[in-house]
Amino acid sequence: MMKRYGSVEAGGTKFICAVGNENNEIIISEAIPTTTYEETIKKVIVFFEKNRVDALAIGSFGPVDLDISSEQYGCILNTPKQGWTNVNIVLPIQKALNIPIFFTTDVNSSAYGEMHLNGCNNLVYYTIGTGIGGSAIQNGVFIGGIGHPEMGHQLIKKHPLDVNFNGVCPLHGDCLEGLASGPSIEARTGKKGQELEINSTVWDIQAYYIAQAILNTTLVIRPELVIVGGGVMSQHHMLDRIKMHFKKLLNNYVTIEDIDKYIKTPSVENNGSATIGNFLLAKNLLIKN
Amino acid sequence: MMKRYGSVEAGGTKFICAVGNENNEIIISEAIPTTTYEETIKKVIVFFEKNRVDALAIGSFGPVDLDISSEQYGCILNTPKQGWTNVNIVLPIQKALNIPIFFTTDVNSSAYGEMHLNGCNNLVYYTIGTGIGGSAIQNGVFIGGIGHPEMGHQLIKKHPLDVNFNGVCPLHGDCLEGLASGPSIEARTGKKGQELEINSTVWDIQAYYIAQAILNTTLVIRPELVIVGGGVMSQHHMLDRIKMHFKKLLNNYVTIEDIDKYIKTPSVENNGSATIGNFLLAKNLLIKN
Repeated sequence: MMKRYGSVEAGGTKFICAVGNENNEIIISEAIPTTTYEETIKKVIVFFEKNRVDALAIGSFGPVDLDISSEQYGCILNTPKQGWTNVNIVLPIQKALNIPIFFTTDVNSSAYGEMHLNGCNNLVYYTIGTGIGGSAIQNGVFIGGIGHPEMGHQLIKKHPLDVNFNGVCPLHGDCLEGLASGPSIEARTGKKGQELEINSTVWDIQAYYIAQAILNTTLVIRPELVIVGGGVMSQHHMLDRIKMHFKKLLNNYVTIEDIDKYIKTPSVENNGSATIGNFLLAKNLLIKN
Repeated sequence: MMKRYGSVEAGGTKFICAVGNENNEIIISEAIPTTTYEETIKKVIVFFEKNRVDALAIGSFGPVDLDISSEQYGCILNTPKQGWTNVNIVLPIQKALNIPIFFTTDVNSSAYGEMHLNGCNNLVYYTIGTGIGGSAIQNGVFIGGIGHPEMGHQLIKKHPLDVNFNGVCPLHGDCLEGLASGPSIEARTGKKGQELEINSTVWDIQAYYIAQAILNTTLVIRPELVIVGGGVMSQHHMLDRIKMHFKKLLNNYVTIEDIDKYIKTPSVENNGSATIGNFLLAKNLLIKN
């Protein structure tokens, strides 16, 4: 009998639940608004009680505890989102549905989907939005020794026209997230990204930082492919700017045959690669069990 | 019968050949000066013809081609060392000795030895000397999708007292190697590291950069342990300076339980961990075959 796989993209504004078939096609999906913890999780359970699946993967906003040996495994940890700190989003769903559940970060789900969609086992995924998240996969396995990568907070060098900007990261000031996330645009210009003129030098400054992040992970991890997604990348001029800076900064130090094939935006709109990633991660559970 | 394993640390000034037993103890070793390619490799072969081993690992200076599917596998690539560009250091040894040979970078050998010596499967190794090299191991496997990591050339943020220094990296100027390698000390002060006063602010600047590199790889890879070796670290005051900056820069963002156990210098003097790493990498070949 054909198996069915479940996906939950647990986000700060909505939980997208979906059921997929063996071909990763979405059979049914529903966006549940993120309200209280209890109400939201209850609606997720109701969705999957109506739409049964054999295994489920959850890609969540964070920070989350992914360590299976930890008491807090399955919990969202210290989040600014009220009412969602130290709540377990795996346990109640597992109890109600009694199926194998894989728990990971939202960006890991996206990266896993992109791995499949690009037929590429070594990749890095950055999402540039309100925050900056990252995921890395080597030979099909997530990178992260004792926890999830937090590459959004790496330190990079300042753009000459940006030396007086201190960055918006409450913890590190001018780390990558402090310099290149969506809110940093508003902090510099008083305008949201959507309102900022396309010829503003701020775009170029942002692209310079994102290119450095890609360069650093290129040199540390040596992936075959880097995907850059997230709200800031919906500015379509950004991809070319990033590639231009990357090329200049790399200065041919390691061989990247075709930068246009190396740095790409996600294959599916609206983070649809996360859904596919979750279907595949759910499927893995049945292969292993 | 007890097996015997060989190690070659192929360096720019000497090739250290060693034979080890099942307990990773050195039975015999010899330092062969690095002269011409032909002469040096011939002496290596003669050493192992006299001192037979069942398998051998070579950790080499670079850049090297580690891709087994490449035609240049086993070659040193574009090195400034005269007469050593595009020479194959695996093939003639394999032909002469007819045993399994594992080929990797010098810093990978060191990292592999430290993995064993510390009983830790997730670690990052930096060597800070004339250049800056790095290696990362996750779950006992080297990180590096399509090539060896080149984390020595990552970009980091400038120290406020160092803004006018352009760095010494011929390719990137003020990348990590350009700012924190041994030659950068001389470029700033006109003095070699060994001659520089211990209270010079340059040490603190160097430590700030090395701490950033450790922070960035901590966030990207999430290792359990970071080892920092190389000539610059023979300045014993550096380790404490690096830990101090690391602590400040991390700002508790991810949990590192004990920074004194997290950032360490190598367990064995004179890069002896590379020899042990090579014995283990050679042993792996026999397990796999």
